[in-house]
Amino acid sequence: MTAPLANASIDSIDLNADLGEGFGRWRLTDDEALLSIVTSANVACGFHAGDPSTMRRVCELAAGRGVRIGAQVSYRDLAGFGRRSMDVPPRELTDEIAYQIGALEVFARAAGARVDYVKPHGALYNRSVHDEAQAAAVVEGIRLADGGPLPVLGLPGSRLHEAARAAGLPVVAEAFADRAYTAAGTLVPRGEPGAVVSDPDTVVKRALGFARDRAVTSIDGQRIEVDVRSLCVHGDTPGAADLARRVRAELTAAGVRVAAFA
Amino acid sequence: MTAPLANASIDSIDLNADLGEGFGRWRLTDDEALLSIVTSANVACGFHAGDPSTMRRVCELAAGRGVRIGAQVSYRDLAGFGRRSMDVPPRELTDEIAYQIGALEVFARAAGARVDYVKPHGALYNRSVHDEAQAAAVVEGIRLADGGPLPVLGLPGSRLHEAARAAGLPVVAEAFADRAYTAAGTLVPRGEPGAVVSDPDTVVKRALGFARDRAVTSIDGQRIEVDVRSLCVHGDTPGAADLARRVRAELTAAGVRVAAFA
Amino acid sequence: MTAPLANASIDSIDLNADLGEGFGRWRLTDDEALLSIVTSANVACGFHAGDPSTMRRVCELAAGRGVRIGAQVSYRDLAGFGRRSMDVPPRELTDEIAYQIGALEVFARAAGARVDYVKPHGALYNRSVHDEAQAAAVVEGIRLADGGPLPVLGLPGSRLHEAARAAGLPVVAEAFADRAYTAAGTLVPRGEPGAVVSDPDTVVKRALGFARDRAVTSIDGQRIEVDVRSLCVHGDTPGAADLARRVRAELTAAGVRVAAFA
Amino acid sequence: MTAPLANASIDSIDLNADLGEGFGRWRLTDDEALLSIVTSANVACGFHAGDPSTMRRVCELAAGRGVRIGAQVSYRDLAGFGRRSMDVPPRELTDEIAYQIGALEVFARAAGARVDYVKPHGALYNRSVHDEAQAAAVVEGIRLADGGPLPVLGLPGSRLHEAARAAGLPVVAEAFADRAYTAAGTLVPRGEPGAVVSDPDTVVKRALGFARDRAVTSIDGQRIEVDVRSLCVHGDTPGAADLARRVRAELTAAGVRVAAFA
Repeated sequence: MTAPLANASIDSIDLNADLGEGFGRWRLTDDEALLSIVTSANVACGFHAGDPSTMRRVCELAAGRGVRIGAQVSYRDLAGFGRRSMDVPPRELTDEIAYQIGALEVFARAAGARVDYVKPHGALYNRSVHDEAQAAAVVEGIRLADGGPLPVLGLPGSRLHEAARAAGLPVVAEAFADRAYTAAGTLVPRGEPGAVVSDPDTVVKRALGFARDRAVTSIDGQRIEVDVRSLCVHGDTPGAADLARRVRAELTAAGVRVAAFA
Repeated sequence: MTAPLANASIDSIDLNADLGEGFGRWRLTDDEALLSIVTSANVACGFHAGDPSTMRRVCELAAGRGVRIGAQVSYRDLAGFGRRSMDVPPRELTDEIAYQIGALEVFARAAGARVDYVKPHGALYNRSVHDEAQAAAVVEGIRLADGGPLPVLGLPGSRLHEAARAAGLPVVAEAFADRAYTAAGTLVPRGEPGAVVSDPDTVVKRALGFARDRAVTSIDGQRIEVDVRSLCVHGDTPGAADLARRVRAELTAAGVRVAAFA
Repeated sequence: MTAPLANASIDSIDLNADLGEGFGRWRLTDDEALLSIVTSANVACGFHAGDPSTMRRVCELAAGRGVRIGAQVSYRDLAGFGRRSMDVPPRELTDEIAYQIGALEVFARAAGARVDYVKPHGALYNRSVHDEAQAAAVVEGIRLADGGPLPVLGLPGSRLHEAARAAGLPVVAEAFADRAYTAAGTLVPRGEPGAVVSDPDTVVKRALGFARDRAVTSIDGQRIEVDVRSLCVHGDTPGAADLARRVRAELTAAGVRVAAFA
Repeated sequence: MTAPLANASIDSIDLNADLGEGFGRWRLTDDEALLSIVTSANVACGFHAGDPSTMRRVCELAAGRGVRIGAQVSYRDLAGFGRRSMDVPPRELTDEIAYQIGALEVFARAAGARVDYVKPHGALYNRSVHDEAQAAAVVEGIRLADGGPLPVLGLPGSRLHEAARAAGLPVVAEAFADRAYTAAGTLVPRGEPGAVVSDPDTVVKRALGFARDRAVTSIDGQRIEVDVRSLCVHGDTPGAADLARRVRAELTAAGVRVAAFA
């Protein structure tokens, strides 16, 4: 395929993780551990997870460590953890997105920070990759919530990013070091064989590839370029924080600066 | 009895009503009609009523008519419409209040306005009259939500107003023309005989008394002074909008200017 | 097309309506009026509408008037009133259906009756017309909830009815007098021109057609046979009860017995 | 004080635990481990925890191991895990209790078992110790849900047990080996010094005391008789299952038969 990108573009990579995904008595993510590793925190806003006190706590921790705060917006689906795709009419979806961002903004601001970007969660994330109407509704919700141009974190080439660009919002492309890619540069759907990369060494190697070479090997063995500014690390499985810590350490050791996207 | 207060203090009165108290498919209040009558709109924020699309619509209507927008914050209790008192730990309550205000702020701002005050709803309103810990938690939530000093609408003499003053927040005292008062100036509890004034003529007369004379006749026949800047009109019963319209007309006819509190 | 069915098959028709579609403080349907008209009550079970006290009240009213009680099961979506299609995994859906039926059974039994049939609501109804996996999950939930063979009320030819038959459950076909039909016998989708029949005279005429002739005129003018045992009348719009009452009166006047399905 | 009770009354003790206290993606209790230890499972019914699929799974596991199934009913308060006392009007509370029992009954029956008893959860448990109206409402809900006389598990001397007896329901008294008792035989309120017994050896010793001697030492050193048929073991803290297993082993070693109450 092509040569690695020039060094100019690989000076830094962002690490983002879903945080604050508890509700009331329940916890899921090891927020404290992850906030010492990642540079961007996707904070659940109450619709799939995230009660007000958890949102406040995560914002305070993130702000205290200089971790960037993003709104992890979702369908209204606590019982399904936002993983069940829903045919929400665009206007309703727009308003639900704005509501979540506004609620989080209060806790970010109270912690001396602000909501710096938006990333859809779960089924909404997957659907806004290809569903033009829902992608546009999410972007409209982001614009409704804030006069300023909030960046949208998502898959490169997604409808969500197209809609964001059309609306004048910055986009930040992310990759998943623990997911297989097709030769076309899309994710191999969960459920298909090999969709998830579970070997830690391979995950680390792929993270390095994304960050240093802006490239990854597809599931059928081809080298594909994936120009991303952020890597998503997972935090909701046992050992997740350890793996994320190792990814960060090896990125640093390889001379890649780990820092929030500009 | 005593003489009416000097004209200086009776130049204007605010009319406030609970609005946007629907959820999804359900409506309760005739928001359009009431927004042509009142000067302050207590907008439900999603915890006892008020989905995001309803919040947006009410904010747009209110802003379009120059009606002031307030956050009508509540316990998290859709099934009980926020009317069931709850022992919410103060820290949780603070965070829940801030969450609601932040969510509403998005729709107020998008409509070219802002959240201009806060009024607790239902059981939280009643409890913060006398419960010092919950009153303080509500005030702390208001402060958390906003750097500026948001006024707190409530009963004169309430713990809520004490806590607001102690925190440096302005207070706005309100009265209910359709509720009986004790000689001590407190509301006769619902459920006691005569607690609710249902005769429209009497309601109008009492509204005039609050606005013009800053006084009302107590349930045992004494004239008591009640210095308020706002009257609460109800919007969730048949004929409510008609009665509110008449109250406003008669206030105006009596030379009382109906305007949002300063 | 073909001749009307023999009289033997038209001796009676069932009228069903969605009831108890309030939640907490909110009401939608005029349950009392409709329960004096219909012969089968589709009672909301708490997932799209229907709090426990409403369920109890409707069951008591229905049992007192000899109206049959059915479980109107739904996606878990109060905010969307069950009208937003959701990708609920079949196993979860099965359990959610069973949960709702069990909860309603308590109030039916306490009223001296029982849950006599099941009808999905809103988006779940529409989806189970064509979605084989969800249809099967609904049927599995019905079987899980009850050892006995509960009839399933739905569209003739739907996947739901196929799945019910395959599982040994009785099916009851219903028609909508206020909806247009294609020549293939399916409903013209809402949103398409002419999908909803709003003229009361036409609605009554079509109801008579379904009940007496087992036939209706399709949107393109053809006579099609629709063999149904129940007519769904709507109760959530102004004038709905009046129209339903008229439908019942004209059916009776035409010699059609209005009675719950066998 | 007095001598130990005669051997006749100490032939067996029941062990109960709160199970199925997850929701959607969240788990709290180690249901599998606890179901190999306890003889009665208090299954969450969806109001403070417990989605339908979790309820089904726990019922299947319990039935498979011969563990008795009870309905752990609660206020409707997912965000507060049912730990926030609520002023629910008695009639509403009754209906909410019945709803939960009915929903659980479906999964118990599908597993070849049935709901064999009821135990309130959290704030409702504490409140029904002393609040006569709520205690009566809970009992009325139990009666509404079932024609048969379901036993009520609770504190000896509680209003709940009084109400149950007055309604003709059996009562089963329980004790907490990890909670301090006053000389009057009531629990030392959480928050007071020494309210919780954390030393495992002491917990085991007290469990033996309850089971074998029907007695415990109060916080001020007096021997008090506490005639109970069940011990509650906790399952929502790290090491909880280990401690429960040890309690069971030592009871058995001491000649106490561990078995569900008759």
